[in-house]
Amino acid sequence: MERSLAELAAHVGGTVEGDGRLRIVGLASLEEAGPGELSFYGNPRYRKELGTTRASAVLLPPGEPVTRSDVAWVRVGSPHLAFARLLALFHPGPPPTPGVHPRAEVHPSARVDPSATVMAMAVVEADAVVGARAVLWPGSYLGEGAQLGEDCVLQPGAIVRERCVLGRRVVLQPGVVVGSDGFGFVFDPSGPAHVKVPQVGTVRIEDDVEVGAGSCIDRATTGETVIGSGTKIDNLVQIAHNVRVGPLSILCAQVGISGSTEIGTGVVLAGQVGIVGHVRVGDGARVAAQSGVPHDVPSGATFSGYPAVERALWLRQSAALKQLPELLREVRELRARVAALESRKDESAP
Amino acid sequence: MERSLAELAAHVGGTVEGDGRLRIVGLASLEEAGPGELSFYGNPRYRKELGTTRASAVLLPPGEPVTRSDVAWVRVGSPHLAFARLLALFHPGPPPTPGVHPRAEVHPSARVDPSATVMAMAVVEADAVVGARAVLWPGSYLGEGAQLGEDCVLQPGAIVRERCVLGRRVVLQPGVVVGSDGFGFVFDPSGPAHVKVPQVGTVRIEDDVEVGAGSCIDRATTGETVIGSGTKIDNLVQIAHNVRVGPLSILCAQVGISGSTEIGTGVVLAGQVGIVGHVRVGDGARVAAQSGVPHDVPSGATFSGYPAVERALWLRQSAALKQLPELLREVRELRARVAALESRKDESAP
Amino acid sequence: MERSLAELAAHVGGTVEGDGRLRIVGLASLEEAGPGELSFYGNPRYRKELGTTRASAVLLPPGEPVTRSDVAWVRVGSPHLAFARLLALFHPGPPPTPGVHPRAEVHPSARVDPSATVMAMAVVEADAVVGARAVLWPGSYLGEGAQLGEDCVLQPGAIVRERCVLGRRVVLQPGVVVGSDGFGFVFDPSGPAHVKVPQVGTVRIEDDVEVGAGSCIDRATTGETVIGSGTKIDNLVQIAHNVRVGPLSILCAQVGISGSTEIGTGVVLAGQVGIVGHVRVGDGARVAAQSGVPHDVPSGATFSGYPAVERALWLRQSAALKQLPELLREVRELRARVAALESRKDESAP
Repeated sequence: MERSLAELAAHVGGTVEGDGRLRIVGLASLEEAGPGELSFYGNPRYRKELGTTRASAVLLPPGEPVTRSDVAWVRVGSPHLAFARLLALFHPGPPPTPGVHPRAEVHPSARVDPSATVMAMAVVEADAVVGARAVLWPGSYLGEGAQLGEDCVLQPGAIVRERCVLGRRVVLQPGVVVGSDGFGFVFDPSGPAHVKVPQVGTVRIEDDVEVGAGSCIDRATTGETVIGSGTKIDNLVQIAHNVRVGPLSILCAQVGISGSTEIGTGVVLAGQVGIVGHVRVGDGARVAAQSGVPHDVPSGATFSGYPAVERALWLRQSAALKQLPELLREVRELRARVAALESRKDESAP
Repeated sequence: MERSLAELAAHVGGTVEGDGRLRIVGLASLEEAGPGELSFYGNPRYRKELGTTRASAVLLPPGEPVTRSDVAWVRVGSPHLAFARLLALFHPGPPPTPGVHPRAEVHPSARVDPSATVMAMAVVEADAVVGARAVLWPGSYLGEGAQLGEDCVLQPGAIVRERCVLGRRVVLQPGVVVGSDGFGFVFDPSGPAHVKVPQVGTVRIEDDVEVGAGSCIDRATTGETVIGSGTKIDNLVQIAHNVRVGPLSILCAQVGISGSTEIGTGVVLAGQVGIVGHVRVGDGARVAAQSGVPHDVPSGATFSGYPAVERALWLRQSAALKQLPELLREVRELRARVAALESRKDESAP
Repeated sequence: MERSLAELAAHVGGTVEGDGRLRIVGLASLEEAGPGELSFYGNPRYRKELGTTRASAVLLPPGEPVTRSDVAWVRVGSPHLAFARLLALFHPGPPPTPGVHPRAEVHPSARVDPSATVMAMAVVEADAVVGARAVLWPGSYLGEGAQLGEDCVLQPGAIVRERCVLGRRVVLQPGVVVGSDGFGFVFDPSGPAHVKVPQVGTVRIEDDVEVGAGSCIDRATTGETVIGSGTKIDNLVQIAHNVRVGPLSILCAQVGISGSTEIGTGVVLAGQVGIVGHVRVGDGARVAAQSGVPHDVPSGATFSGYPAVERALWLRQSAALKQLPELLREVRELRARVAALESRKDESAP
């Protein structure tokens, strides 16, 4: 595949500064790109690479000064977004052939749209529904009465247990588990035993959600665990029963959310964050990596630390913590000086 | 399914306060329940919901005052436990049809009880044993010489490697791995290389253990990794080689336990806790979420923090930490005041 | 299997101190070993077990005094390494029968070496390459155009997505995912939507790498995510897109590494460590369990804590933190004493 720079600029609504007839054969980062390739610059962290890149052309945001004449530029509102769109253009991915592979196992009562693809070793149980153009990769599993909307993708080994419902364009990366039993037990001292609370609810995943490899979303005890539309979840994330995650939130890798907690709209939880059960993280809140959240987080707040506090306070605490060993020494010294003052005082007393 | 409130109360040994002839059609939480449904109240955190629930009947603990006359009550020792038992009554789950699916792969030397179920794409290797009424869901795997006791369940994609032994009523949620190699390497500077220590031991899981989705339990280097009876393990938990977890312990999501550590009886490890290798967590100990435990924890203790300390101390430390920036300012000020005192002192000296 | 102690000593280049004709039937830890078994001693932590072991023979490092006459000794440079080699000798593991199982699904265009083994329910996609003696266990998956080098092992349920390349002797434990999409989205406020950045790069794993159960290694956005030769990765580890891990590094369980970060040669990251994106951890650096690393770590350094700092500083901080509640009390007291001094001063002023 090969396109002119002018065509690519038009595709993303950008303006060429340089030779629009340039032939572009591929896309790469500033560091990796070579002649014939297009790259993008969006973060001042990469200014050095912008100066040294061997890319033939670079997507550039408005206002960014042009410093080299050996590179063609495409001026565009969001270079990163434009780059994403051009990647999709260059790497369309062959559409899988519709149909059920002879080595897939589909229950006769399941309804599989004729435009959907069910690959080898995939299993579709009774009464399950597979929407138009949905793709089940090898070894994926759709449980009894579960539903996949249009254009859903279950990557290899992704598992959706019974009665869970996925909206449109939901992507489950390899090894994702949706609808595992929530962790609900009641201690019965007469056993003694932890008696299982049957987890009879489901999971509902709205449109345009993507879930990263190995992540687990537990079904509700009763009712629903809900992942709101447009939410993106990274790898190895744990979402417990009856959690609700608002639309457009971002959950980075290895985050854990305990039962019945609500995550609002547009929230960002960085990697390895843990959130206790039965709390609410407000709309637009951000929680820094590895933080442990034991209570509600207000909308729009940025929290850090363990236990998590407002980031500004946490930064002060962290800075203070570094000075703590010195502080201990100082207080010891002060104590001695005060004692000295006191004893002189006593001596000078009548 | 529909039952009278009196029947349900009898099933859990409770007493109706109100109309026992009420027809109950389902179970739900206080917030979700509607007319015809039964709910439960066991935690003061939900007192508000108790006041507003639309449930027709509610399970209530002894001594809790009745505040509404439009709801029927069932007085019972543990409402949560009673609710769990009624959920099991209302949602029995159809017993899977016994037999080996034509698309399962079972080695001729494996012994599969005739009452067991082996579903499509499941694999049972040579000399493996599948007990009465055990169920292997699609894509699950039972390795060579491994054993599943009566009523065990391997959910879709659960994997049990060679020679591991599961007791009775063990449930592995989807994607669980039992018997993966422990992480054992010795550095050989002459390579240089990390030389693998063959992991030739096994995993033994006792009766009534449940393991959550995506959790991993490594086989022992030599000997056994052991999960004691009645222990419940949440999702994405890591248990290293030669660990021993006592009966009736609770390991919440994303906990990690390093090699050869012993977890006693009735221990509770909250989410994302990490425990180093070769230590012991005593019976009945509790460790708060995200804590990092670098040494033994005494029986009955409650630990928090990183490094984990007695919770009471940790709470004082956390409270003090919040005051640390202010403390730094104060000490600076004190130093100035002491210096002032000292200089006046000096001036007043003869 | 049974061997004389002299034969075993010769196998590892050791010297017998005692009866070399002793018949050894197995290997075990000091605590587990019984008569006829060989054990090893390499860590002073196990001196007590050395005094009480029932093993017939023990591997011992140079210089370690012999304290018992009822045990035969084998003197060897590294007892742990020797033990690893003897475990491999005693437990060779039956070589799997070469060939493609009739219930495996191998695309006609894939090239599978005749000495390789593809077991039931494994899937090999178009144009994939399986090297000599490689083994694909049941339910494993090799994507389109992906390559497995000689002697690679995909344990049950291990997944390698399209175009990823594994070197020689790479082992993926059960449930590993290689080549899942990196977590790349750009926010488009006009949606609003998180627009996916197509992840069109790959993963390259060099020779002699082992990856633990359930770990995930994301493919690069463009270019490659690289795991260097001889690196060993434990269970449930997350490696994001475009990460590079140097040769011979050790990543313990539940570690998470964010995008584009570089981990040098011979680095050790202990359990549950988190590292932000776009930083570099220098050669030979060590990071303590649960630490959170927000910036570069110099070569050879040892870091701890959240945010991670030099371990020596962290130890002082941790020690100081324990004294913090007491310090607060002291400073309050000092303040009172200084105030008292000041007021007396004032009184004594003319």
